[in-house]
Amino acid sequence: MRFRRVALVGKYHASGSRDALERVVHFLHEQGCEVTLERETAHHMGPLGDGTLDVAGIGAHCDLALVVGGDGTMLGIGRQLGPCGVPLIGINQGRLGFITDIPFDRFADILRPMLRGAYEEEHRALMRAGVWRDGDCVFQTIAMNDVVVNRGGAPSMVELRVEVDGHFVANQRADGLIIASPTGSTAYALSAGGPLIHPAIAGWVMVPIAPHTLSNRPIVLPSDGEIAIEVVAGREPSAHFDMQTFTSLLPGDRIAVRRSAHTLRLLHPVGWSYFDTLRRKLHWNEGVVA
Amino acid sequence: MRFRRVALVGKYHASGSRDALERVVHFLHEQGCEVTLERETAHHMGPLGDGTLDVAGIGAHCDLALVVGGDGTMLGIGRQLGPCGVPLIGINQGRLGFITDIPFDRFADILRPMLRGAYEEEHRALMRAGVWRDGDCVFQTIAMNDVVVNRGGAPSMVELRVEVDGHFVANQRADGLIIASPTGSTAYALSAGGPLIHPAIAGWVMVPIAPHTLSNRPIVLPSDGEIAIEVVAGREPSAHFDMQTFTSLLPGDRIAVRRSAHTLRLLHPVGWSYFDTLRRKLHWNEGVVA
Amino acid sequence: MRFRRVALVGKYHASGSRDALERVVHFLHEQGCEVTLERETAHHMGPLGDGTLDVAGIGAHCDLALVVGGDGTMLGIGRQLGPCGVPLIGINQGRLGFITDIPFDRFADILRPMLRGAYEEEHRALMRAGVWRDGDCVFQTIAMNDVVVNRGGAPSMVELRVEVDGHFVANQRADGLIIASPTGSTAYALSAGGPLIHPAIAGWVMVPIAPHTLSNRPIVLPSDGEIAIEVVAGREPSAHFDMQTFTSLLPGDRIAVRRSAHTLRLLHPVGWSYFDTLRRKLHWNEGVVA
Amino acid sequence: MRFRRVALVGKYHASGSRDALERVVHFLHEQGCEVTLERETAHHMGPLGDGTLDVAGIGAHCDLALVVGGDGTMLGIGRQLGPCGVPLIGINQGRLGFITDIPFDRFADILRPMLRGAYEEEHRALMRAGVWRDGDCVFQTIAMNDVVVNRGGAPSMVELRVEVDGHFVANQRADGLIIASPTGSTAYALSAGGPLIHPAIAGWVMVPIAPHTLSNRPIVLPSDGEIAIEVVAGREPSAHFDMQTFTSLLPGDRIAVRRSAHTLRLLHPVGWSYFDTLRRKLHWNEGVVA
Repeated sequence: MRFRRVALVGKYHASGSRDALERVVHFLHEQGCEVTLERETAHHMGPLGDGTLDVAGIGAHCDLALVVGGDGTMLGIGRQLGPCGVPLIGINQGRLGFITDIPFDRFADILRPMLRGAYEEEHRALMRAGVWRDGDCVFQTIAMNDVVVNRGGAPSMVELRVEVDGHFVANQRADGLIIASPTGSTAYALSAGGPLIHPAIAGWVMVPIAPHTLSNRPIVLPSDGEIAIEVVAGREPSAHFDMQTFTSLLPGDRIAVRRSAHTLRLLHPVGWSYFDTLRRKLHWNEGVVA
Repeated sequence: MRFRRVALVGKYHASGSRDALERVVHFLHEQGCEVTLERETAHHMGPLGDGTLDVAGIGAHCDLALVVGGDGTMLGIGRQLGPCGVPLIGINQGRLGFITDIPFDRFADILRPMLRGAYEEEHRALMRAGVWRDGDCVFQTIAMNDVVVNRGGAPSMVELRVEVDGHFVANQRADGLIIASPTGSTAYALSAGGPLIHPAIAGWVMVPIAPHTLSNRPIVLPSDGEIAIEVVAGREPSAHFDMQTFTSLLPGDRIAVRRSAHTLRLLHPVGWSYFDTLRRKLHWNEGVVA
Repeated sequence: MRFRRVALVGKYHASGSRDALERVVHFLHEQGCEVTLERETAHHMGPLGDGTLDVAGIGAHCDLALVVGGDGTMLGIGRQLGPCGVPLIGINQGRLGFITDIPFDRFADILRPMLRGAYEEEHRALMRAGVWRDGDCVFQTIAMNDVVVNRGGAPSMVELRVEVDGHFVANQRADGLIIASPTGSTAYALSAGGPLIHPAIAGWVMVPIAPHTLSNRPIVLPSDGEIAIEVVAGREPSAHFDMQTFTSLLPGDRIAVRRSAHTLRLLHPVGWSYFDTLRRKLHWNEGVVA
Repeated sequence: MRFRRVALVGKYHASGSRDALERVVHFLHEQGCEVTLERETAHHMGPLGDGTLDVAGIGAHCDLALVVGGDGTMLGIGRQLGPCGVPLIGINQGRLGFITDIPFDRFADILRPMLRGAYEEEHRALMRAGVWRDGDCVFQTIAMNDVVVNRGGAPSMVELRVEVDGHFVANQRADGLIIASPTGSTAYALSAGGPLIHPAIAGWVMVPIAPHTLSNRPIVLPSDGEIAIEVVAGREPSAHFDMQTFTSLLPGDRIAVRRSAHTLRLLHPVGWSYFDTLRRKLHWNEGVVA
């Protein structure tokens, strides 16, 4: 048995989730694993398995985290567990996810060999991002998908000044600007017209949202430097780091993005292919032109 | 003299505007015109010319409206004056506008023949739009550029259900959805990836903003029917009609768009070309690929 | 019976096509119709029904043409029969088509009421296009989908000069340029990034293929004027009118596009919706972003 | 003096080029350099400087190559000289190039410090590409910008099957498919809708040309593996490696792309910025929306 102490994380708001978690616990016990429930999951689902730990505890004591839910659940826990070095496996309860790639109805057959060490490991870059005001860091966090700076609810635009390692890149007048990791390139950045970025690429993609110039294009930038976005103008702009929001940005505030020293360790079944997931999720080659 | 009673409309917030308006008044008097200042303009600029009228008064008593400012100024006054049948001429104080196409520094030479009847007249379709709740119309207005339904400030999407003349078109999950007139096709719709629509086309273009599906495309719809956008879900979505905003949309609210019975009459100098303006404003053929 | 003399057109190259045609003939005889086979179809399939006529004969003597095949078959016959005023119904043997919208396996149930007059009629604009050299028309034809001017096989671009009713629009340096009808907006123009155009729109869409400037956008132009594309430069450019090709274009040649005085009459079952077809063919709302 | 033996490469077809080269030779002699003319340049321009060598000779004996012309000239010589390790400086005679970034009219002032060692060195990845038929390599070359597989002159599409390191990626039905290096991301790939890729990114971007599905998107792939494009179907498809063409591809042929072990060494003046060049060439922030 490769992984003995397994943490279990579930999504909170779905009916039937407790049932699903119980089946996973039962299976893990059969495999000889000790099962620790993540504290928030326990708070919503009630006790299950052999105990409860918060994320820091899981990071310190567990060999593996099983995430039962969807990509959103993984997004919430991944950026916290990633830096601890605990590998994650995603089990999907809805339709196939980009990251949570194991369908729930086949989890036992797929997990069995993985728990014994037959898996493929993939590392996903994490973004370390912060908000700087007058030289001070007023907010700092880790993001898996993207950092977004955008307009408030009013139908106006923001004006942003972008620098890479101190080099001026461009002024962007737009609804907003997305800096996405390869993982995030299949999320909001894709909606805004960005390209797909393979997870092995050491870069971020910068995608403007509804830019006010025609000659704008997404650009893929190296992730080993610092991207800084300075707020030049805009009504109530805000910054978003995955699902965390920093509101009330002021002109002169700088949102800085660097690559985290840590990566997210994702485990996949043997034979897993990134491209298969892309095709299935994005329906490549469907929607045929006449 | 073709136009004797000329209304003058200026933008309010620019320094140097009064000066500009005085020069226009002087010129019009030389041409033998009577000059009426629009009331809001008078409120900000002080009295000028031969009297002051509100928009309704201008609609009833003037032969022509001269708009001195930019496309935004024209947008504000055009949707009010358009339905009155008063033709408009736009004089641009900044860089060339799409609609306000006469550069200020040459206004006298260009206006002189126009006032004597040498001009080209163009009609721009206006949108009659409203918000319907439980069968009642709770908001109604005229728009020149576009009707936009979009998310609030929160980083979430809206889900909208679109019908044309009662036929289901699509569910759209996106940051928002734009229905733009040909006039508005060079504004926000263009930022969001929409095509240019020639003003003579009897259609609207529907453009999703950052849509959550890959297979989405802008679609040009006939303007002689009704486009209805129903709010299915979303956090604090709002509707925007040019620069007017209707906030606090509720699920089930319907935003309906029809073509107004009235059109905006724009007058251009003889030899004016829509395509020249496009090329100059949009820098077609610049931004050359390697 | 609304339609007594029915012409039958099939695609030539598919195995099993004769079988399909025989079933359609049998059904039409049961309905009391006289069935005329289109000459080319007869040439490939052998005799069937009550006689054979060429397209001109069908145009003169038949009340209706049934097209069994796919959108390509319809494209071939539609631009010939459209000008004769004979209405067409498309029966699809493969997957659902944009125009041939009746699935073969349900043709009898769907056609029965249509033959008795219960149908919805739709008119599609046709393009009248020609190639002009030194003032002479050297090629002329009718197109349903699009007129394309593009580079030859060599990896070079063409340079084209576009005018609308004698007004200069733009110089385009690109792989090519597409002028598509609303019907063609779901075909090649869509591949090249163009918008969807509802069939009721009186316009063409001009879409550049891989344009050499960033600030290029598709534009929807009125169809009641003339669009002229002049070849400025390029290695062996050619012009394509649906599936007909005119090679060996020379610098100075002009490809002119006008709306034909005739339209294509398409008959659909009652309750047919253009938008349903779009959704099914284009998989709107599939290919979901994370 | 950092560089003593300098090779000079010019474009062949421009009038006034000999004059320009003479001035560069004169300047280099003043700086104490020995000047070798590239053989093809000498063939077209006549003798100049201190001797003539072919590319291999330059690779073996010169410390630096000065390229006078445009990006096209650099493209022709760069893929040959890159593998030899000789650094290149580009002097632009026309408008600013992406790579040939020194304007001709200021070359003396800019080159003087560079020749003494004050420069910034940048490495551009090169593509090693080949055509494989029945297991044999039938064509092999180096490309700087891109590898393109596309349809012939006929208005048909190609069908291509893409694999990355033996993993199936997608079947593409399109006018063609581009695999571009970061250097090539500002060329044809940009025309076809691809993103900009910073030169420091270790990846290629795959961009379909007019793809026959709506759900297609450019994808950035790691450059440390092999991308293989198999011809499935198409009329007279061909493959292009920068400006070299391999025609008459057959079904089953595979075009394979790997990163070359060599890179192109480009020297820039101190203070040079990739982003400045992008902004100037691509006119970022021009072509303003209303």
